Amino acid sequence: MEHIKFCGDHLKILDQTLLPHEKKYIKCRNTETLIEAIKSLRIRGAPALGIIGAYGVVIAALESKTEKEFMEKVEKIKNARPTAVNLSWGVEKVLNSADSFKSIGKMIDTAKSIHEEDIQKNKKIGKNGAKLIKKRFRVLTHCNAGALATGGYGTALGVIRTAFEKNKKIEVFVDETRPLCQGSRLTAWELKEENIPCTLITDSTAGFLMQKRKIDIVITGADRIAMNGDTANKIGTYSLSVLAKENNIPFYIAAPLSTFDRNSKTGNDILIEYRDEEEVLYLYGKKVATDVPALNPAFDITPNKYITGIITEKGIISPPYEKNIKGILK
Amino acid sequence: MEHIKFCGDHLKILDQTLLPHEKKYIKCRNTETLIEAIKSLRIRGAPALGIIGAYGVVIAALESKTEKEFMEKVEKIKNARPTAVNLSWGVEKVLNSADSFKSIGKMIDTAKSIHEEDIQKNKKIGKNGAKLIKKRFRVLTHCNAGALATGGYGTALGVIRTAFEKNKKIEVFVDETRPLCQGSRLTAWELKEENIPCTLITDSTAGFLMQKRKIDIVITGADRIAMNGDTANKIGTYSLSVLAKENNIPFYIAAPLSTFDRNSKTGNDILIEYRDEEEVLYLYGKKVATDVPALNPAFDITPNKYITGIITEKGIISPPYEKNIKGILK
Repeated sequence: MEHIKFCGDHLKILDQTLLPHEKKYIKCRNTETLIEAIKSLRIRGAPALGIIGAYGVVIAALESKTEKEFMEKVEKIKNARPTAVNLSWGVEKVLNSADSFKSIGKMIDTAKSIHEEDIQKNKKIGKNGAKLIKKRFRVLTHCNAGALATGGYGTALGVIRTAFEKNKKIEVFVDETRPLCQGSRLTAWELKEENIPCTLITDSTAGFLMQKRKIDIVITGADRIAMNGDTANKIGTYSLSVLAKENNIPFYIAAPLSTFDRNSKTGNDILIEYRDEEEVLYLYGKKVATDVPALNPAFDITPNKYITGIITEKGIISPPYEKNIKGILK
Repeated sequence: MEHIKFCGDHLKILDQTLLPHEKKYIKCRNTETLIEAIKSLRIRGAPALGIIGAYGVVIAALESKTEKEFMEKVEKIKNARPTAVNLSWGVEKVLNSADSFKSIGKMIDTAKSIHEEDIQKNKKIGKNGAKLIKKRFRVLTHCNAGALATGGYGTALGVIRTAFEKNKKIEVFVDETRPLCQGSRLTAWELKEENIPCTLITDSTAGFLMQKRKIDIVITGADRIAMNGDTANKIGTYSLSVLAKENNIPFYIAAPLSTFDRNSKTGNDILIEYRDEEEVLYLYGKKVATDVPALNPAFDITPNKYITGIITEKGIISPPYEKNIKGILK
């Protein structure tokens, strides 16, 4: 799936807010359009934001006349969303590869290699994670940690894809993931495209299925992982982790090493993004609720004690996390 | 709120599927219209279904020419929805008060007294439950256990109403309750009408708020309670109970004694209703998901070990439930 494509002087992005109803691309020729696309979630998912941050630096360089103007634009891209650490990681990587804002060729090479490497990392995550999936496993996933959330293969869905390719006859349960329904709109769409059997459920149904012994493993992505393993991911992930523990179901996070944040010692250091209440009150432009205030945290923190393991491109990290994360990041 | 009104030869019901956008009544002059209203959730909520079952017998009697025809219609009403025990309870109560299908006057008296008693029971539940609510408590509720779900005051919302009337300065967090959004459409609407401060959240946000110590107590209604305290209620209730326990937050059920089912020893004996997958795939007639299969259990079972207490019109039942439920039902 080519949902992020650099085309010489602009970036083409598949508008995920319109899926699954419409497959429309937007062209980003300037940082303003790019930042709007990030803030409106036309493009989302931690690893994808890393790639977008990288290409964003190229776009900023192309449209800037001075180094000062360039750095201001780059700073705005970095801060377009607060929780996913990959965005600033991608920006920094490209910045560090360039001598000045005129080293556009170098920047493009770095951004493209970040993009390509992400796909390769995802495939390794898939390979490492697929070992956890036994035949006929029923896998639960939340939000979208698929091709659309990454360079093009997926973290949590990368594991699911690989397991399916290895003929493990899995079945996937997909949380719809309110309020923006990344599960029912995006994950279900990706799985359907690949003919991977899946069943959609409301977020509240996940606990019921776990209690009924109908889920064998839970795998989600991550937006930021602290150095002790505490993980920020889409709102609802914390609840799933508690329910999985209560029902003795293994709970895994799948993410590339770029999602670890050396500046976050624990989950307490991770900033949670609160988004507009209208995302809860409206759906597809239609008001679906009574006109009262709504609270809309986009993420929550899953404490490390609920996480069975973290699947990375370098292998699966098990507890004790503090020691083992430090080890793998060396 | 007069959302159920018997008008001599027909029953007027506020169509809850249209709330909060439209306040429209439907007239039930025959059991067919009544059963459609029950199945389509134009009227829902365990105690309200008890009242509807009671009036339903009157409607069936009014339109029947023979006892056999009458009994067939009554049977259909009883089986319109499988999980809420109150429906058959209301039907039986009116049946038992009549000598034949021609004792319409007696039936009307019984149905009206069931309706009136429900409101009085709710007020007692409110009074008993309000003792649990301290000043400035932040209360979480799920689905709608309010006036609309009962004769006109509410079970879980009855407790909230009474606490608010007693000037306890509470704040209510309302789960939207996918897929049919009884929380965001009905509970938020009821609370707004009474100026009770409330904040709407997605179902997945409840765990996050509990973890952040922003919820002091959880109160929900019940559709059926087994003799050991295991409780069937709207899907998602089980998840909330596990999250509450994990975070040491008291978790209460509020329900009249008519919700206890002497034929259900434990939750395993309670039949769970599975509803159409379209309720998950569509919202207000708009497709909101990719076209994949969806699973739509309407209820789940909360095991008694997660329940701090059951608030009834005769007082609060505490563990050990088996003994104490038997005692209160004597």
